Amino acid sequence: MGFTLSHYLIRNLPFGEAKKNSITKYIGGIILADKILRVDMTSLQTIWQNLPEKYRMLGGRGLTSRIIADEVPPTCHPLGPANKLIVTPGLLGGTTAPQSGRISIGGKSPLTGGIKESNAGGLIAQKLGSLGIRAIVVEGQAPAGKTYLLEVYDNAARLVKADDLAGKGCYEITDAIWDRYDKKAAIMTIGPAGEMRLTGAGISVTDPNGSPGRFAGRGGLGALLGSKGLKAIVVLTDKTFEAHCYDSERFNAAAKRFVEVLRKNPVSGQTLPSYGTNGLVNVINEAGALPTHNFREGTFAGAGNVSGERMAELIKERGGKTGHPCHPGCVIKCSNIYKDKNGEVLVSPLEYESVWALGPHCGIDDLDAIAYMNRLCNDAGVDTIETGGAIGVAMEGGLIPFGDTQGAIGLLEEIKKGSPLGRIIGSGAAITGQVFGVQRVGVVKRQHITAYDPRAVKGMGVTYATSPMGADHTAGYSVAVNILRQGGYVDPLSTRGQLETSLNLQVATAAIDSLGLCIFIAFSFLEQEDSFGLILEMINSKMGSNWSAEDFTRLGEEIINTELGFNHQAGFTKAKDRLPEFFETEKFPPHNEVFDVKQDELDKIFTFAEEVETDAGKAASLR
Amino acid sequence: MGFTLSHYLIRNLPFGEAKKNSITKYIGGIILADKILRVDMTSLQTIWQNLPEKYRMLGGRGLTSRIIADEVPPTCHPLGPANKLIVTPGLLGGTTAPQSGRISIGGKSPLTGGIKESNAGGLIAQKLGSLGIRAIVVEGQAPAGKTYLLEVYDNAARLVKADDLAGKGCYEITDAIWDRYDKKAAIMTIGPAGEMRLTGAGISVTDPNGSPGRFAGRGGLGALLGSKGLKAIVVLTDKTFEAHCYDSERFNAAAKRFVEVLRKNPVSGQTLPSYGTNGLVNVINEAGALPTHNFREGTFAGAGNVSGERMAELIKERGGKTGHPCHPGCVIKCSNIYKDKNGEVLVSPLEYESVWALGPHCGIDDLDAIAYMNRLCNDAGVDTIETGGAIGVAMEGGLIPFGDTQGAIGLLEEIKKGSPLGRIIGSGAAITGQVFGVQRVGVVKRQHITAYDPRAVKGMGVTYATSPMGADHTAGYSVAVNILRQGGYVDPLSTRGQLETSLNLQVATAAIDSLGLCIFIAFSFLEQEDSFGLILEMINSKMGSNWSAEDFTRLGEEIINTELGFNHQAGFTKAKDRLPEFFETEKFPPHNEVFDVKQDELDKIFTFAEEVETDAGKAASLR
Repeated sequence: MGFTLSHYLIRNLPFGEAKKNSITKYIGGIILADKILRVDMTSLQTIWQNLPEKYRMLGGRGLTSRIIADEVPPTCHPLGPANKLIVTPGLLGGTTAPQSGRISIGGKSPLTGGIKESNAGGLIAQKLGSLGIRAIVVEGQAPAGKTYLLEVYDNAARLVKADDLAGKGCYEITDAIWDRYDKKAAIMTIGPAGEMRLTGAGISVTDPNGSPGRFAGRGGLGALLGSKGLKAIVVLTDKTFEAHCYDSERFNAAAKRFVEVLRKNPVSGQTLPSYGTNGLVNVINEAGALPTHNFREGTFAGAGNVSGERMAELIKERGGKTGHPCHPGCVIKCSNIYKDKNGEVLVSPLEYESVWALGPHCGIDDLDAIAYMNRLCNDAGVDTIETGGAIGVAMEGGLIPFGDTQGAIGLLEEIKKGSPLGRIIGSGAAITGQVFGVQRVGVVKRQHITAYDPRAVKGMGVTYATSPMGADHTAGYSVAVNILRQGGYVDPLSTRGQLETSLNLQVATAAIDSLGLCIFIAFSFLEQEDSFGLILEMINSKMGSNWSAEDFTRLGEEIINTELGFNHQAGFTKAKDRLPEFFETEKFPPHNEVFDVKQDELDKIFTFAEEVETDAGKAASLR
Repeated sequence: MGFTLSHYLIRNLPFGEAKKNSITKYIGGIILADKILRVDMTSLQTIWQNLPEKYRMLGGRGLTSRIIADEVPPTCHPLGPANKLIVTPGLLGGTTAPQSGRISIGGKSPLTGGIKESNAGGLIAQKLGSLGIRAIVVEGQAPAGKTYLLEVYDNAARLVKADDLAGKGCYEITDAIWDRYDKKAAIMTIGPAGEMRLTGAGISVTDPNGSPGRFAGRGGLGALLGSKGLKAIVVLTDKTFEAHCYDSERFNAAAKRFVEVLRKNPVSGQTLPSYGTNGLVNVINEAGALPTHNFREGTFAGAGNVSGERMAELIKERGGKTGHPCHPGCVIKCSNIYKDKNGEVLVSPLEYESVWALGPHCGIDDLDAIAYMNRLCNDAGVDTIETGGAIGVAMEGGLIPFGDTQGAIGLLEEIKKGSPLGRIIGSGAAITGQVFGVQRVGVVKRQHITAYDPRAVKGMGVTYATSPMGADHTAGYSVAVNILRQGGYVDPLSTRGQLETSLNLQVATAAIDSLGLCIFIAFSFLEQEDSFGLILEMINSKMGSNWSAEDFTRLGEEIINTELGFNHQAGFTKAKDRLPEFFETEKFPPHNEVFDVKQDELDKIFTFAEEVETDAGKAASLR
């Protein structure tokens, strides 16, 4: 409303140009090519490129990390013109495979300084996959102060001026774009935080209901998009499940069986649909692993007030929704729509990690306030984990007391305003700690740890410390084995078996993230024998390939190797693969454990890692 | 003066305890030991330790870096209890050697995350040297919120509570301590910025006139002292030149001849006493190398208004002082006392680097305003270079316009207040850039570059990029050769000869910094043949040693090797030995040069560097 785009076409090659591609999509005997859409913000041109053969079996994180390693100078300034933002559906994106709608977004992270992939649900991945767009590569840099929007159509793309969108929050932008275009438009956008290039800024992705609450939140990728001068990407097509397959019949059969497998699994078939991820509050609290008051203790007196069970009650009372899918083709449906006391939608979804960061981490147990804080984060366009982390650090530094809900809301409101205080908080926990002189800051590679204390779930400590992504629970979710006892059990308090658990999960996750599949399929992986075979069957019937389990593992290892190589060239050493020292010295109630996996053990986790040269610039062989 | 110290003795071992030391000081046949004074802020004890034999020939930077490498875990949090702050006079400290009054302060830098030494003049080095204290090692951490002061006497030391000093500026503290103790007390203190643990905080050292304007400013060492809970060190002794010599007669003869050498040199004998370091404004501006408006051009329209010549005129008019010594025994006397229009002392000294950072870098050409800004920095206790750098970055980000003098003063006033904005600026240029989304930030290893643009003085670019200290002009002052033509000439705009120039100067500087000698003796080194021999003669006659020129070079190399090893273990790779990319891409008027010394050449500069292992933790052999 009141939002006028001055459209002008920059460059618009019809897809016919791409037919010479060596990469093939079979549609009734006609060979079409998968494409890379390059968006050069310096020249303001969009350029279609045939997918190079070397990328044929890559999608999602596998492709973001590969393109970054191939094209981004590791030591470049993450907010300079040499960095690139890569957007990729997974290899199974745009198909009827259940859970195949994750969109991967990658680049050199403004937060960590290393390689980054962050993925989210929403509408966009299935649409890009259906259009045969394997990657959008945003490169260069628009003139300072200019704001653009990228329109992607069935057979064209163009940059349009969008100065009138500058400074607007993600809710307003999503509404404006849906009004202007189409209620089916898939939107990826940044809020004011991304425009301000704050290192806590994420990228919002709209879900089927038009909520901008799906976030590729981590690593400050919103700041990277902001540095390009690109406020939003809008994909305008009705297609959703139209990525074509080498053998559709075989594919659909496998996909159908995979739906059954997911429904049979107790976590993905029951717990997640009922309580969402927030069902973990009680589970992790009972395990004594819920980090409370900036990692001071592992249980939270107010856990019951913010639990998934309580959330589900409130949602039912107020006419919200549980069992909500975050993307077309989701059958787990762990998302939700959370309404306020008056029955108005407050936020969608409300997830465990966000509840934890804005709640127990800060000593806050008011779920409505947490939901409102989540909405403020979504609107400003910042990662809830990083921002909740920053608020906890500000509390540690004495800026406001722990448990001060109104104070925390006040801090969040500052972000969108762009005040100095808001910019500090919006820059994340590491900078907040530096500015407020706080040394108890729970970050690895400058990214904030999440809702599982590494002293009480030691496998997570290994993942936080060693993942090339920085502290990231999704990179190797050992909670599945340490706490949820899926696929065996490794005592969370012992050091035994944690390295192997984390390693196996990190490798599997890297591969799953490349398929565009939701990480929650991993529960079926761990428990149901037929699950893995069905995924291979879907890959092979879509791609005309003949992958084995070994190929899948090799993919995961190669991705991690590529990422380690980039980080090494960017200046990372194993000295960065460390938890903050207080985790090694301060005992964590109620188990009173410290994180005691030895540092030299951590250094050996990636058994497959290629030898890297000591000097930056010499490790080109990794690329 | 309303300032009451609640004295209580913590631990006070008489010096007699130290007599068993193997390190010897000869006084009329009585053997006394040089000592290390350890100040444990956790137990609040002071402990005297005999100087270990391995440290016998180390002082200044050589000793700070060695103790850090031996005792500080490289990956520790710089503001945590494991870091240590080391204070050392040079090997010639406390003698009548001219220029021997520099005090070295070292630790793991809160700003760079690497090893750091920063040195200053003032009263303290000569007094510590006279007391036979080779190093003060501040370790552990006082309880949060507690503030202490360390008293050092002729034969004792103690920690006293000083909560009443908390939050006070360096001027007020210096006055209060001189009122309380003695006008001859040598004081080292931090301002509110250090207490807030801001990474731009330095350490103030009083000069003979009681000005707190001598600063070990760089690397955020004020934040390190603040993290210990130690507000100030006060050395209470009348002794100034009483470090004892193996052969006093020989020593005094050499020292006397060295005074003559320094007086004969045109830079140390004429330029520096007349105009101070600020005489460089016109010189560097004429060379087109004066970075103006955040490194946009190499000449400044207002240079004449802020030059050393203009400063000397104003000082004369207003009854200030040029040719002022910064420490007892200084014969170069490049310092000054700068008064305001009403004849009141505004700041002492006003130095070239400070004038540049707060002036041309920010587009400001009002010398009185710059002097006032310098005073604000001194009072808050922040490094003028880092803070001026941060203001320029804030200007780049649009917070205030370039040239906005009142706006810049307003930003500086925020630091002492501890407002969010003040904390950002007081944290230095790198954080200011991150928070305000600015990518044109002139830092290396997060420390701000100084008053010589690396595109117009390429030897300085090599030093900035490669010094283990981060961007630091004093670490290898190629300006001497590139611009001042001392000891030969290497074209500042060519890449030829810059590596060798920087390397030789970095090695010589590391050794000079270990003797406690002012870096300006280097001009005599470069031009006068007898200079080097006299320094060796002073070392040997003081220490009873038999050092040759090779030993001196070896000392410099060993220091740099030790520092590189620490940084490597802390997680530094050669990827950190890079200038910000805009220096390599943006041409710099008037010469329109870029910094084009090749990165792989930079990586080879330290020809003597020991092979380091790839993995952190494996390089213990370097220690």
